[in-house]
Amino acid sequence: MKDATFIIFGATGDLTRRKIIPAIYKLVKNKKLRSFRIIGCARSKKNIQTILSQSKKFARDVQASRWRKIVKNSVYQVLDFYKEEDYTQLAVLLGKQQRIFYLATAPEHFHIISKYLAKYKLARKTDNVVYEKPFGHDLYSAKKINKCISTVFNEKQIYRIDHYLGKELVGDITLMRFTNRILEPLWNSKHIAQIQIVMTEDLLVGKRGGFYDKYGVLKDVVQNHALQLLALTAMEAPKMLSGEYIRSEKARVLKRTQVTAALVGQYHGYKSEPGVTKNSTTETFAALQLKINNSRWRGVPFYILAGKALVKKQTSIHIKFKEVHCLLAKSCPSDSNYFTIRIQPDNGFSLELNSKMPGKKQAIIPVNMDFCEKCRFGPNTPEAYETLLEDVLCGDQSVFVRKDEIEYAWKIIDRVRKGKIYSYKKGTGGPPALDAWNKKNGVLWKEVSK
Amino acid sequence: MKDATFIIFGATGDLTRRKIIPAIYKLVKNKKLRSFRIIGCARSKKNIQTILSQSKKFARDVQASRWRKIVKNSVYQVLDFYKEEDYTQLAVLLGKQQRIFYLATAPEHFHIISKYLAKYKLARKTDNVVYEKPFGHDLYSAKKINKCISTVFNEKQIYRIDHYLGKELVGDITLMRFTNRILEPLWNSKHIAQIQIVMTEDLLVGKRGGFYDKYGVLKDVVQNHALQLLALTAMEAPKMLSGEYIRSEKARVLKRTQVTAALVGQYHGYKSEPGVTKNSTTETFAALQLKINNSRWRGVPFYILAGKALVKKQTSIHIKFKEVHCLLAKSCPSDSNYFTIRIQPDNGFSLELNSKMPGKKQAIIPVNMDFCEKCRFGPNTPEAYETLLEDVLCGDQSVFVRKDEIEYAWKIIDRVRKGKIYSYKKGTGGPPALDAWNKKNGVLWKEVSK
Repeated sequence: MKDATFIIFGATGDLTRRKIIPAIYKLVKNKKLRSFRIIGCARSKKNIQTILSQSKKFARDVQASRWRKIVKNSVYQVLDFYKEEDYTQLAVLLGKQQRIFYLATAPEHFHIISKYLAKYKLARKTDNVVYEKPFGHDLYSAKKINKCISTVFNEKQIYRIDHYLGKELVGDITLMRFTNRILEPLWNSKHIAQIQIVMTEDLLVGKRGGFYDKYGVLKDVVQNHALQLLALTAMEAPKMLSGEYIRSEKARVLKRTQVTAALVGQYHGYKSEPGVTKNSTTETFAALQLKINNSRWRGVPFYILAGKALVKKQTSIHIKFKEVHCLLAKSCPSDSNYFTIRIQPDNGFSLELNSKMPGKKQAIIPVNMDFCEKCRFGPNTPEAYETLLEDVLCGDQSVFVRKDEIEYAWKIIDRVRKGKIYSYKKGTGGPPALDAWNKKNGVLWKEVSK
Repeated sequence: MKDATFIIFGATGDLTRRKIIPAIYKLVKNKKLRSFRIIGCARSKKNIQTILSQSKKFARDVQASRWRKIVKNSVYQVLDFYKEEDYTQLAVLLGKQQRIFYLATAPEHFHIISKYLAKYKLARKTDNVVYEKPFGHDLYSAKKINKCISTVFNEKQIYRIDHYLGKELVGDITLMRFTNRILEPLWNSKHIAQIQIVMTEDLLVGKRGGFYDKYGVLKDVVQNHALQLLALTAMEAPKMLSGEYIRSEKARVLKRTQVTAALVGQYHGYKSEPGVTKNSTTETFAALQLKINNSRWRGVPFYILAGKALVKKQTSIHIKFKEVHCLLAKSCPSDSNYFTIRIQPDNGFSLELNSKMPGKKQAIIPVNMDFCEKCRFGPNTPEAYETLLEDVLCGDQSVFVRKDEIEYAWKIIDRVRKGKIYSYKKGTGGPPALDAWNKKNGVLWKEVSK
């Protein structure tokens, strides 16, 4: 049980309502948080009650007594990020409790907010500062933010959020890789043919048009989520399965990673979405081939497929093993083994094995062994933001992104040569040109176009 | 579609009614058999209609029109195995069709029947002879039978049945081992800690007391079924996944196998079973430790557990992998990975992996991935005897036991030092002394005592 004051910058935004407040509620409910306060800050005049009442449905199944606690302990403070006097006003509200500053704002404000938090001594040495993604929009801007916040805070106080790292199955990648004899010795170029990271959405840009158009899919989800998944899947064994060792190994492998082929696309009608410029060349779809230049992965292509307005929402990692030399007299295995980690929806993992076709002696059929997390543990596993906020409370940085990781990831994305932007129909598997690209680059996406 | 005449010796026995006739019916139903005849032979006077009507329920869901075909094409012939003139009588009934002689008799009659089948030219060079198990009762008797039948038949005509080899999941062992990258490279002493073959029954000896008392569990199921499972699990990669290569590899590994520890038991009340001698020392339970002296398996113990009157009926092979060196800061994996092949009931296989305990960062919990054959392919996969008879029809010997295999298997059993016979209560996991034996011999049986 911890005590804390949460100061949320960007309190009128979607993230506060949908994720941050519900996560704090869950911490209260699960007795991780004892005495606490929530201070919502933003420039516009708002009532904290309005924000909370909009937030309630996202907290799901709230107990009235516990929610009243949230209401009682929350206040709203008008704050213009660029007005120094507003910070002194905020200072008056803060007590002795540990403070968690949550910067749920656009990254261009990170540097000024950080500066004033330090200047007016709002953030003390023992307080933590959380930075929402995106962390910059390219290597240059990310370096600039890092440089600025490093001068006012210790790296130990800095929590760069990638909420994917709070997801159960993402946390499971490292654990599974390094504690299972049936996986660990096979996890290299000798046995693995290719690795696919698929991160598709069926939704369009929706209300995020203005933001999205400045970023595109590569900066919105590939630079952070997809490359973090790649790093966890590809990294060398850390000395121990604990935070700093894992962050070092992730940084090391990202440093060796580069995009070797790319195809980008934009869905039909994107240019008419609210907030999007009429002649936008922002990509809403990307297929990447990546190579990792080290001895474990030499010769093994990695692929990332990400985009909006596609067939379905899913995030999965598919490990495609090489074939075993064919021993069969009459017929050969038609497919390799796949180990799939399903991050969402329907968390779990599965293994596709070659088995005997019933009634035939030497005919092979791939069959699936499955583990579904919900089926085993029920639906109440913690959500990413709850896990992440609890870590901030406890000072555990292991699932937050370190300075060097984030810069290596931006470097990878900055160097992508996008080429022509192909358009594609909503609800399809991407641009028609993808077929030829797949063939040329040696990928047969697992379960993507279904 | 084949044509054949089946001549069943021991036609009044249980096996004919329960397995052989129903299997022939299935072959007719599944259009594997076109023109056919069944000649049931035994010493006592019997009506073929009685045998068939008792057999009908074992054939399950028979279609009247097809069953009439069985009835129409079946005859009964009184035949004393030791009367030469009876064989000449039988000869009169045989036409030009391919003949399949099925010796469903006790092994002591194998040699005389074979001799007369040859002498009176009932079995021609193109006809096949099937020998039911048990094939002898020790190495000496098995060699004697082999010697005798080898002088009158070609090994190509000789089909020694082990009906376990006709079971779907048994046929799957080789296929899975050698066509899956996730299994093949790990299948050796570097990665496997131990292998357990569990073959338990909840039933008592029932009507088989007289027979059973002469054999006991080691000769009744271990010498054949359990050692065949061991051979398939342990053998080296055959040049091709086809009959003769597999039989050679099974023989090779059995030659290198020996029992290094044994504990035998007899269930309470066994001595009062009908047919059992009052001071019987026959074992109804056995736990064995075996070693295989080759480079793949040096240092890896194999275990067999078999018996009657135990908790439940199951046949499974459990591959227990070694632990991965512990990388975890806070807690360690509590269990190794298990790959389990369930031969009966509930055919399928499963893999137990270490996974992340939801909501905890570094706590491990073993979770199960499962494949259930029935769930995927429905309940209508062929039964063992149907598969086996079809193979005999087609001249495919791959799932029949070759002369050398059967002799190596008997040699292993002949050399077991049984020691004291421990008694145990019906419906338990075996003799209480098993606990100490397990500890001493390094085995923790998977799921046996549940």
